[in-house]
Amino acid sequence: MPHPNDPSLRSFIPVAPTSDFPIQNLPYGVFSSKDGLAPRVGVAIGDCVLDLWELAQDCRFDLVEPAVFAAASLNPFMALGPKVWSSTRARISELLRADYPELRDNEKLRARALVPMADVKLHLPFVVSGYTDFYSSKEHATNVGVMFRGKDNALQPNWLHMPIGYNGRASTVVASGTPVRRPRGQLKPPTAEVPSFGPCKRLDFELEMGVVVGQPSTMGEMLTEKQAEEMIFGFVILNDWSARDIQQWEYVPLGPFQAKVFATSISPWVVMREALEPFRLHGPVQEPKPLPYLQQTQPNNYDMQLEVGMRAGPMNAPANISRTNFKYMYWSSVQQLVHHAACGCAMNVGDLLGSGTISGPEKDQRGSLLEISWNGTEPVEFAAGVTRTFLEDGDSLVMRGWCQGNGYRVGFGEVEGTILAAG
Amino acid sequence: MPHPNDPSLRSFIPVAPTSDFPIQNLPYGVFSSKDGLAPRVGVAIGDCVLDLWELAQDCRFDLVEPAVFAAASLNPFMALGPKVWSSTRARISELLRADYPELRDNEKLRARALVPMADVKLHLPFVVSGYTDFYSSKEHATNVGVMFRGKDNALQPNWLHMPIGYNGRASTVVASGTPVRRPRGQLKPPTAEVPSFGPCKRLDFELEMGVVVGQPSTMGEMLTEKQAEEMIFGFVILNDWSARDIQQWEYVPLGPFQAKVFATSISPWVVMREALEPFRLHGPVQEPKPLPYLQQTQPNNYDMQLEVGMRAGPMNAPANISRTNFKYMYWSSVQQLVHHAACGCAMNVGDLLGSGTISGPEKDQRGSLLEISWNGTEPVEFAAGVTRTFLEDGDSLVMRGWCQGNGYRVGFGEVEGTILAAG
Repeated sequence: MPHPNDPSLRSFIPVAPTSDFPIQNLPYGVFSSKDGLAPRVGVAIGDCVLDLWELAQDCRFDLVEPAVFAAASLNPFMALGPKVWSSTRARISELLRADYPELRDNEKLRARALVPMADVKLHLPFVVSGYTDFYSSKEHATNVGVMFRGKDNALQPNWLHMPIGYNGRASTVVASGTPVRRPRGQLKPPTAEVPSFGPCKRLDFELEMGVVVGQPSTMGEMLTEKQAEEMIFGFVILNDWSARDIQQWEYVPLGPFQAKVFATSISPWVVMREALEPFRLHGPVQEPKPLPYLQQTQPNNYDMQLEVGMRAGPMNAPANISRTNFKYMYWSSVQQLVHHAACGCAMNVGDLLGSGTISGPEKDQRGSLLEISWNGTEPVEFAAGVTRTFLEDGDSLVMRGWCQGNGYRVGFGEVEGTILAAG
Repeated sequence: MPHPNDPSLRSFIPVAPTSDFPIQNLPYGVFSSKDGLAPRVGVAIGDCVLDLWELAQDCRFDLVEPAVFAAASLNPFMALGPKVWSSTRARISELLRADYPELRDNEKLRARALVPMADVKLHLPFVVSGYTDFYSSKEHATNVGVMFRGKDNALQPNWLHMPIGYNGRASTVVASGTPVRRPRGQLKPPTAEVPSFGPCKRLDFELEMGVVVGQPSTMGEMLTEKQAEEMIFGFVILNDWSARDIQQWEYVPLGPFQAKVFATSISPWVVMREALEPFRLHGPVQEPKPLPYLQQTQPNNYDMQLEVGMRAGPMNAPANISRTNFKYMYWSSVQQLVHHAACGCAMNVGDLLGSGTISGPEKDQRGSLLEISWNGTEPVEFAAGVTRTFLEDGDSLVMRGWCQGNGYRVGFGEVEGTILAAG
């Protein structure tokens, strides 16, 4: 049986070379369709969703009960562990192969199990048990540091020694397409004597990847590189919406709170770690050498192209404002997870770890408006004279990402959000 | 029907005047007993646990199905809302009254529904959806500020304008009695050139109260004082274990992370907000006046006595190291909840809000070893020549709290934790 990552595999479902969802991908999501059934688990293939509950009911999986795919979240499936993740993916790949007749030639089952993507609604793919946000792009941390502390003290002393992170808020992680209401909060510009309360004036996005943890760890126990890797089910694109002015006033000494907890958007498809295997590479050289518990024996970064599109006010369609790559991250997702559990913190099925804003070395590779507009001093110029320093009501943000194979891409779809006026 | 808070009420169950659990309290918890049944919901009365599932099965409640009390957490009961909380408490009070025959004279039902507390195991009382930790004692924030920044800059500029808080880690909130393993982490004393990784050397506790949120709020919407109050189901005592040396090195700029996520212990009984009504009082005068969204029209603090006992190494029993009161808190729990939701953050059933370390104005009212030993410079002296600056392996911490009525007290039981050596 060929490996599901084999670039030569083709599906009987037509897949364009620029589609995010060839047979080499097979990402998991939660969808509902016009049939009125409750949200359930599916896999993206070309322009279709494969309904895994229908396949399981038809006894097409040995290891997974239909109830697992009837759930409105991936958590029960993730809880089954890496061996089941892998064998299920292999089985789905087989069922979708152009040269495999089982599903291809079963017209009745195909009609039940394949739903046009245009007809489905995509939901938040998993119940977010805990959300942690890291700060692991050296370029991003340096940009922010230069802006606020000057060139000579850009990186904090601890930054090169550990993946700096903080606990985020799980209750407001939302699916792509959910509108984002402009938050209110305390604002105190440097010129004001006292703070006032009102709508955020410096609303921003942050381009991040999110790691989806699919296996638990035991409270009080550390993780090795290998253990951490095997706990990672997959990845999503993540927009860590940020209220810069609220953050500026509140964050000393306990970190960002209201500035970040109002919304975090993720892409609807979880791309499995296994599907990203062909695109692994080494991250940047880490100097000073990390402490032993954070050292890596294998390449844990990924060559993944990322794009941010923004539709400002009167524009008809989003224009590109950033093109970067996940490979630039200084601290890898595996290092983040190892560090997270290092003090004995228990990890759970459904934990989400944000990578931190992904900026690259070039000016057009910056992952936030804070950096792109250099703290508001260099407005972004769109066509038709529209300019922006931060997000205005009605603006939309769209992020996309994919790993480019030879003639195919393993992609994430998109994460979109439109700003609503403060309530 | 008398109000369940009526000080003249007596139960047919004998209750000592110093018991935490008179008929005026009736706190909820989750317990299991020797009968081998799964953990379920009960109420503390004197030295007994009243098994609500047994009562519900016997059709003693109109509004609550037995399944709600068969759960291993209070979340399903809390989800029913304040009217059901209140009417259920009134019904339980009635059933336990000395002058009410229904349960008192039903020997068979009493035998099934009343379990000696000595025979039960108490569990974590609710599923912690999200955990947020505040920093709302002016005395504590000032002590910490004086230690690290000197007298003139003790309070950060934002502190008097809002309840400063940060997202905590829900996965490691544990029940009283759970041993706490000393965390490992990155340490960099000021004298060291580079950080090292090893067991925390400055392990501390923090005496806090925890608010248990029993009703959800809508993402994108603010809360009024009244709405926030009605969402509060009850309170627990909370020990926010803290690794001071890990915190010192990691916390700039995103706040505490590994220093706090290894364990948080809570008391097993959730005392209902309603039971604390007779002990309400106004908190300290807030000057400057808070912004309108944080202003209070009613007393939202409580006159609640708190004690910390510590058993260091060879000691047989804990000795008292702090006596303080919840009434000193500058920002009330209602203000914390209003602020938390102010940016549009959705609150959930089962959210836990730590008050922040509760220190009082006097030296013997400090709520952490950091303050009691003044950053390690003034060791605590126990009998038999035992001294401590921070917690050592084998040390135990016990916190207690109660509101003193006339001839009775509404108490919380205790939250205990013993330090295990790093793994």
